[in-house]
Amino acid sequence: MKKATVKAVVLDKLNNAPVVILGIEGTNKILPIWIGACEASILALMLENTEFERPLTHDLMINIIEGLEAKVERVYINRIENNTFFARVVLKDLTIPEEEEEGHYIEFDARPSDAIILALKTSSPIYVSNELVNTHTVNFEGEKFDDEDEEFKKFVENL
Amino acid sequence: MKKATVKAVVLDKLNNAPVVILGIEGTNKILPIWIGACEASILALMLENTEFERPLTHDLMINIIEGLEAKVERVYINRIENNTFFARVVLKDLTIPEEEEEGHYIEFDARPSDAIILALKTSSPIYVSNELVNTHTVNFEGEKFDDEDEEFKKFVENL
Repeated sequence: MKKATVKAVVLDKLNNAPVVILGIEGTNKILPIWIGACEASILALMLENTEFERPLTHDLMINIIEGLEAKVERVYINRIENNTFFARVVLKDLTIPEEEEEGHYIEFDARPSDAIILALKTSSPIYVSNELVNTHTVNFEGEKFDDEDEEFKKFVENL
Repeated sequence: MKKATVKAVVLDKLNNAPVVILGIEGTNKILPIWIGACEASILALMLENTEFERPLTHDLMINIIEGLEAKVERVYINRIENNTFFARVVLKDLTIPEEEEEGHYIEFDARPSDAIILALKTSSPIYVSNELVNTHTVNFEGEKFDDEDEEFKKFVENL
């Protein structure tokens, strides 16, 4: 399992589909994940630090998690099947005393977009399974993940 | 507090904004609530009984609520401020024994769209505060909440 960070949300113009670009920490490996338009716009607004007066859906979800005395511990992108990436959201149940050996963690099946949004909103780590790192990442030698950067633009065009 | 049901999701063409139409049970009063495009498309797909292979955001939220041993008890649209409707999601904490007098219910501030989607997905009741019923509903004498129905079309045009 390798730690990853969100580098950018871009548009794959060929398929007119948004893509979240995860960078595998300590490497120049990139994992592109195609996501839905609504989730992409939430992610893009988050990366721009846009603030909203009312709780968005994922804010409500986090308020509920915390209200039920749990917290987002980490999320991970674990596998791909028929071109669909699968993710897991791992919550820590805070009602269970630390000294107990089991029952602290509960995992939920999720789409990568929801998992990534929850991780970003709660400053929790994002991981990618070794298998996906080995089979579905691409190398990007550029330095900037920026629409203005020629190297990154070329990279996105060839996704 | 009056019980309400979702009658339709329509487009307010004047403002190019989606509107969810709540009907107050046992009356011909309608509460129109303007919502976001993403939430409207989720609601519209739900009303058409569209099924998805992967859990959508609200499915993940419900899985988390159930995984943390709670359930959606009811939701209510309680007030309006600066043209923005506010809602509450009421969860029941299932870890608290029935015989205990307090602590069963936890309330969360939410946008009406999220509250309504959660209610529909969990078959929980939707309520509207008496104040909103008295001040923000309109009468609709028609029988059908259908795009094809002339009376309903006229009603939507005059929202």
